[in-house]
Amino acid sequence: MVKLVVAYGPPEDATAFDQYYADTHAPLAQAVPGLRNFEAGKVLGTPDGSAAPYHLIAQLSFDDLEALQTALGTPEGQAAAGDIANFASGGATLMVVDA
Amino acid sequence: MVKLVVAYGPPEDATAFDQYYADTHAPLAQAVPGLRNFEAGKVLGTPDGSAAPYHLIAQLSFDDLEALQTALGTPEGQAAAGDIANFASGGATLMVVDA
Repeated sequence: MVKLVVAYGPPEDATAFDQYYADTHAPLAQAVPGLRNFEAGKVLGTPDGSAAPYHLIAQLSFDDLEALQTALGTPEGQAAAGDIANFASGGATLMVVDA
Repeated sequence: MVKLVVAYGPPEDATAFDQYYADTHAPLAQAVPGLRNFEAGKVLGTPDGSAAPYHLIAQLSFDDLEALQTALGTPEGQAAAGDIANFASGGATLMVVDA
């Protein structure tokens, strides 16, 4: 398995981000073909109380790297990826992680 | 559930990092009391080919925030946390994430 990890930086308006994410972006992400598991977790803080660099971390699991790359090329994958700019005011860091 | 996410920046010597992590650090992390699940995934890259900010991402799951905080205070938790400085030449970002 491989995961696409999407780490969202702290947004300008956390309430608006959370609402858009739940109502609009998560459904787009969950519609991506070949997706085996979807997780999105709010960052609660850091163990030492310093500011966390991210607000939310999403993880999308696929069978393998080929399945992930295929998924990103589908209309649904393009729609989900293209939607990030609509709400991620704190930026988004995307990584492919072995799992 | 909550997760302690540990994101390791690119180390000076990736081979040495990987060996130390597998042989020494992962066993210390897995010995932490109350740990429900342990995952460590190598970052393979980014979808757009830019440099990834992290080399490896570990995720340690606990029943809840209290269990995580208790775990970090145990001798095993202190040993695992204290060991990070022994090998994480690229730094380590620790976050508590809702799961």
